[in-house]
Formats: sequence, C-alpha cells, structure tokens
Amino acid sequence: MRATVMHAAGDVRIEHVPDASIIEPTDAVIRVTRACICGSDLWPYRSMQPSDKGQRMGHEAIGVVEAIGADVHTVKHGDVVVMPFAISDGTCIFCHEGLPTACKHLGFFGNQGNDGAQAEAIRIPYADGTLFALPVEADDALMPSLLTLADVMGTGHHAAVVAKVGAGRNVAVVGDGAVGLCAVIAAKRLGAERIIVLGRHPDRVALAREFGATDVVSERGAEAVEHVRRLTGGEGAHSVLECVGLRQAMETAVEITRPGGAIGRVGVPQDAAMPGSQPAFYNNITVGGGPAPVRPYIRELLPDILDGRIQPGRVFDSVVDLNGVPGGYRAMDNRKALKVMIRP
Amino acid sequence: MRATVMHAAGDVRIEHVPDASIIEPTDAVIRVTRACICGSDLWPYRSMQPSDKGQRMGHEAIGVVEAIGADVHTVKHGDVVVMPFAISDGTCIFCHEGLPTACKHLGFFGNQGNDGAQAEAIRIPYADGTLFALPVEADDALMPSLLTLADVMGTGHHAAVVAKVGAGRNVAVVGDGAVGLCAVIAAKRLGAERIIVLGRHPDRVALAREFGATDVVSERGAEAVEHVRRLTGGEGAHSVLECVGLRQAMETAVEITRPGGAIGRVGVPQDAAMPGSQPAFYNNITVGGGPAPVRPYIRELLPDILDGRIQPGRVFDSVVDLNGVPGGYRAMDNRKALKVMIRP
Repeated sequence: MRATVMHAAGDVRIEHVPDASIIEPTDAVIRVTRACICGSDLWPYRSMQPSDKGQRMGHEAIGVVEAIGADVHTVKHGDVVVMPFAISDGTCIFCHEGLPTACKHLGFFGNQGNDGAQAEAIRIPYADGTLFALPVEADDALMPSLLTLADVMGTGHHAAVVAKVGAGRNVAVVGDGAVGLCAVIAAKRLGAERIIVLGRHPDRVALAREFGATDVVSERGAEAVEHVRRLTGGEGAHSVLECVGLRQAMETAVEITRPGGAIGRVGVPQDAAMPGSQPAFYNNITVGGGPAPVRPYIRELLPDILDGRIQPGRVFDSVVDLNGVPGGYRAMDNRKALKVMIRP
Repeated sequence: MRATVMHAAGDVRIEHVPDASIIEPTDAVIRVTRACICGSDLWPYRSMQPSDKGQRMGHEAIGVVEAIGADVHTVKHGDVVVMPFAISDGTCIFCHEGLPTACKHLGFFGNQGNDGAQAEAIRIPYADGTLFALPVEADDALMPSLLTLADVMGTGHHAAVVAKVGAGRNVAVVGDGAVGLCAVIAAKRLGAERIIVLGRHPDRVALAREFGATDVVSERGAEAVEHVRRLTGGEGAHSVLECVGLRQAMETAVEITRPGGAIGRVGVPQDAAMPGSQPAFYNNITVGGGPAPVRPYIRELLPDILDGRIQPGRVFDSVVDLNGVPGGYRAMDNRKALKVMIRP
C-alpha cells in the first residue's frame, strides 16, 4: 500500500510500504477514506532531522473497517469510523475517567514510530478503545465536519471547556488556525456572547466571524493586549483559548485574561517553562489544557454535526489525493492553505 | 507610636513613627492586639536593598478599632477585627465577585510603601472593604487561630480550593511552613482522605500529622516524586497544594500531579516562567492560584475556628513583643521558629 513518510524537514514522500495488517488481537485495520494534514505536522516539517527510515505521518482519519482482531468487539467489518489522534486502550482508569490522552497504553498516530493515517490504510491498536463508529455511510456529505472530530474540533472544544466558557463570559481565542476556528465554534456552542479572535489572516478571521466571533484583533503583543482590554471594559476576557503554543501567544493569553479567569491551552507549548507565571499568579488565573480527550468529546459533538448546527468541516479549504500530500504540506507551510483534506 | 521598619536585608528596627490617624473618610485606625511575621517577610529580609526611609512591615493582624472616618459603616469604635493582608475597597466588581485580591484599589499592607501591622497601631484604608469584625473579645483564647484568618489559613484554604480538594481525592502538600500546614488543615476539612505532606522539619511534619496528614515525604526532587508516586498507585495526587514558590517546589508539584489533576499554588513564584510547562500540558494538569481572597474565606472558616474544629493557631510556636520582632525575624530566618506571633 502507499503511505506518507517524512524523512527530514521539508522532505515528505509517498512510499510503498507493507500492507497494514492485524498484529495484536486488539487491532483493527481501516481503509482510510478521509485524512488530513494538521498544523502540528508542520513542526517536524520545519525541524525534523534526516532519517533513513522516516516517520509515517497523519493522526486524523475517517475510514472503513477492513479487518479486526479476535478481541475487538465494538467495531466490525464495514463500519465507518473516526480515528482520534490518540491510541487508547479504553479500559484503564484514565480512559474510564474520560481522559484517554492519559491512557496507560497511550500512543500518538503518525508520531514516535507509530503508523500514520495519511495512507491508504492503517493499523489501529486497541481498536475498541480508540475507534468511534459513526452512523453514516462512507460518502456522507458531512465527511469534512465529521473528520474534525478526530482532532481539531475536539481540541477547540477542549480549550473552551478548560477555559470554563459559558453564558455571560467574554471569550478570547488566540490563533486563527484550524484549531482556533474550531475553538470559536466551541465557544459559541457553549453560550459565549462576546468572542474575540486574535488573528491576522483575512480569510481565516472572516470564517471566524461566520463561526460566531464578534470581534477581531489583528494586532500582536502589547497592542493586541490593549485592544482586547478595550473590548472587555479594561478587564480582559474571562476565558482565553490558547490555540498556538508559541511563547508570544502564551504571554498574550496571560495578559488578556481577566483576574480570576481561566486559560485553556491546546497549542503544544514550545517552551519548557510557561511564560507569564508571575502575572498569572498575581491575577489568580488558572491555566489548564493539553492533548484533548477527543474521543469522549465525540459523543457530545456528533449530534450537532449531524444536525448541521456546527460546520467545523469548513476549515478545510483544499482537497488532495495521496500524490498531492507533499504539495499539501507546502501549501500549509506557506499559509496558502488553512487545512488540507486527503482523499487517498 | 512604635512600628517595625525594615531598612535592608537583615536590618529590621523598631522605630518611633507618627501615630496612625485617619486620612481618608474611608479609613479606620486599629490598635494592633496581635500581629505576626510571615514567611513572605523573609524575602525582603534576605534581599532588600538598603533604604533610608525603609519599609513598614507586617500584613497580618487582629486589632481593636480606635477611630473611623466619616464614610465607614461596617465597623465601629471598639470592634475586634481581623485585618487581611490585602487592602480592598469592597465595592468594585472583583470584590463583589469574591476576589478582593484583584480589587481596583488593591494594596498590600507592609509592602509598596503601605503601613505595616507589626506596630502599635495601623491605618486601614477602605476599612469597610478590608476589615472583618469578629464576634469575640480582644483577649479571646482563640486569638492565635483567629489571627491566621488574616493570611495563612485563608491562603492554605485557597490552595485547596483551587486544587479541587474533595472527598476521595489524594492530596499532596508541597511545603511544611505555616501555609503548608494550614493547607493540610484545609485539605482535611474539605474531605481529603490521603494527605501527603512534603517536608523535612521533624517538628513541622509532626504537626502536619496532627492536622491530618497521613503520609510524610521528606526526600526532595526525583526521590520525592518517586515516593509520592508509590503512595498513589503510581499515578500521582489528584490535588497538589504548592506552598513554597521556589523553582524546585513547582517542578516537584507538576511531577507529582496525577494526569488530569490540579495544582493550587500559593507560594509566591520566584521565577518569571513557570517550570514544568510541558509535563503539565501533556498530563492535562491545571495550574491555578495566587494571592488568596482571604477576606471572603473568613465567613467560611470562622465557624470552624470558633467551634474548635480546626486549630490553625498551633502554627505559632513563639510569641514576642515589639522589641522582640527583630529577634523573631532572625528566628524564622534560621528556622528556629515556625511562625512568630507579636503582641505589641
């Protein structure tokens, strides 16, 4: 079969690899019908050291179950399933508590040597705990939005939950990438009235407005802080959703949070130490977040997608086949594409 | 009148200063009947640059109201009152929301040029918003415990609240100073079953056990982390109360928190950036806390002190008069005293 393999920064190839197959009795194999490229795939794309073996890429997919191991009971041949970005066993205490991203058998697809979803097929370890069967056909028109349940919609929702978004709260979303845009959807969905998006890409902030953002702050640094404060009576936002991970984004997030407010951070932090520790302390700001437990969130978000109440699939502005994947990375890297969908 | 003035690191003097008096109509003047020395007073005691004018010291007191301004309505001459460490107007939106430490007229006693409580008397700005009248006489036997409502008991409680302490949760308290010990009391009071205190001073951890600590971890760094993990099934504590503020304490706090758990930090952070940002992120740990809103907490904690259910006053192991204050600083600095009470 064919799969995407990254060999070094900027070096993404489509290669012939051994067919995905059942290894453990808890495995399934899915034929990938939709996958995509994630903003986080751009980190190795910009920094990976050369590797002969390379790393299979892709951690978001929808597919059709082709085979299951003897111990798989919740999905069967022919099921249309979402593959969340994290491998989770579904049985450990953290999975039971709703935090599969702390699973005792946690793994990340397309990372750390694990197989990737930007491929014709993929082996799914712990299929019962990892996959989520969808009540749709493989060619459903809602596929783009359903695909976001694998990562970005659940991740934006996580930021909103951790930042305690709710009715009557002012919300600021730092970042206008796919996760930031999904965070706007999540904030709107959870009842926020004022939703300020911090971003500067005209197409993206326009989409943010369609998703429910009430204000756009296109400045950076101190000017952005000043602008958000003006919009919030001088006090800052109750809930800040940090969807970037870079130092300045986190610094800005702390500065625009109201005293006593909360930050939900879902951008992978690039710094070993968190900027803004002291202002966060003096203002009694709570900082939480991390890899989103997207699988349990599917149950909450799916009805709204099936009913058309939310349309996170609109973050995809480009579709490629497997041959188009290297070009998709280039397009996202130079910001010509917001998020690229793959139809292998 | 006489008051404590710090002029440089290690240089604490008792000086004659102008009598405390009403300046603004919202002021009160209290005669200090009890004050104390705080662990946080040791930071300037170890680092203050020489100053001719010096800084009045002390931010925790109980006293008797001697005078009030024309606009003071909630306390009157003769009332016995607690003076929380923060000046707050009682009328701004943050005071109304229960976060007076974000008050729009916030000030800290014994800091930033404000008057201090290690004195015969002190002027209280915004007396209605700042002081809390007690239903006791000035010589009540519960004075030591009541005095802790000015800071350390409310601060330990804040750590516990922010760290979401409750029934069925494992709790770890980092630090065996007065705040750490009060945090143990708070954790016990809020229903925690297992309470692990990280400390190495025999007298203090013995008191922690009397307050409800079930386990003592006297190692530091990686060994402390390992020990806490052993005590918690390998997973870490649900709630970690960081009562130190130094880098290693915060690093340890992150390492001993269970995935999905929460840290309440009340030790003033010594680092501009928070250590452990990445492990906190990957484990979905929430970090909150800051200067405790001790005034609204008084209403919750006072009944338990009056009934004798909690005895935070036991953290005082030394009593001095004003002349003994410089020696009190020395005793706390070299750890011969845990916390020094002052009877001016």
